[in-house]
Amino acid sequence: MMTADEKHLKKMKAIKEKQDQKIAAADIERGVSILLAGPGKGKSSSAFGMLARSLGHGHKVAVVQFLKGAMSTGEERFFTSHENVDWFAMGDGFTWETQNRQQDVDSAEKAWAKAAELLADERYNLVILDEITYMFKYQYLEFQPTLDALKNRPTTMNVVLTGRGPKQELIDAVDTYSHILEEKHAFKDGVKAQAGIEW
Amino acid sequence: MMTADEKHLKKMKAIKEKQDQKIAAADIERGVSILLAGPGKGKSSSAFGMLARSLGHGHKVAVVQFLKGAMSTGEERFFTSHENVDWFAMGDGFTWETQNRQQDVDSAEKAWAKAAELLADERYNLVILDEITYMFKYQYLEFQPTLDALKNRPTTMNVVLTGRGPKQELIDAVDTYSHILEEKHAFKDGVKAQAGIEW
Repeated sequence: MMTADEKHLKKMKAIKEKQDQKIAAADIERGVSILLAGPGKGKSSSAFGMLARSLGHGHKVAVVQFLKGAMSTGEERFFTSHENVDWFAMGDGFTWETQNRQQDVDSAEKAWAKAAELLADERYNLVILDEITYMFKYQYLEFQPTLDALKNRPTTMNVVLTGRGPKQELIDAVDTYSHILEEKHAFKDGVKAQAGIEW
Repeated sequence: MMTADEKHLKKMKAIKEKQDQKIAAADIERGVSILLAGPGKGKSSSAFGMLARSLGHGHKVAVVQFLKGAMSTGEERFFTSHENVDWFAMGDGFTWETQNRQQDVDSAEKAWAKAAELLADERYNLVILDEITYMFKYQYLEFQPTLDALKNRPTTMNVVLTGRGPKQELIDAVDTYSHILEEKHAFKDGVKAQAGIEW
């Protein structure tokens, strides 16, 4: 009869074999597009985590923030000083803060013009389009130019897109899509948004 | 009759009023505990995004990685040089790589001893327990000491826990829980894990 340790070893060898097969099967080398959407916490923060990872590999990265801009955030303060980061916080804040549709649309168009430039620039290994989904949701931007730019980008480029309520066409277009559910949130239990966590 | 702009303004004013009420209602100032779990991409990367945010606010942070350790990652390379970061990659790799239960348990216990020390140290504004859920799932660690350490930590401390298959008691204990679903993943379509994205 096998001991517990022997059983563990046998099971792990079997898992390892399967894992190795999966890794060998995934042999396409190219940049990926990732969509992080849904109501839960973790969309923008995950994008910024990948940004840090990417910098750890010596990559050049760019960020366009479509909503944030009016307020200084921890991520902006932390990353903008890095030589391999180009950061464009081009929003005017939440729509209910600006209360001015035309101003929102103008900001969205400027932000998109910058994003389009970055998505065509092969020097970047990673481009983050933070909270871009709202631009389509609110009809501040047309969707087709984003779809085209994603398709035509340099093959080495990774792209991360974040925000709630993504269009089905965007979900269809990306390689990876995580839907982040909000099971619980401290804010709803009366805890103030914490520096370093929410901003 | 109202113009489209006037309608927008009226709607935004109403939203702003509700948002301001929500913000005013969330007046508790204390550190939060956040669990990022589920099969989708974005758990550890979100934790590292919050780490960057936190550093942007001048906070002191610590990371214990319960699985990673054998392999150098982009996040480790990027963050460990920062003076406000203490980084402990204390795992030996995936269980199917070590294939040695006793070695895994020993590593888990050492990692937990370090985590317990950090969770009691009020100099840290943020402590990340990366992939800790697996330690309970595989029964490498007892759960109660983690639960106690979370409850008894300094009130100013934020904690982020990541990994798949969290215990219900952990979900119950944390303030914020995002469940990350994997709707699509590039790897499953044959794309190799990309540096800067997956590691």
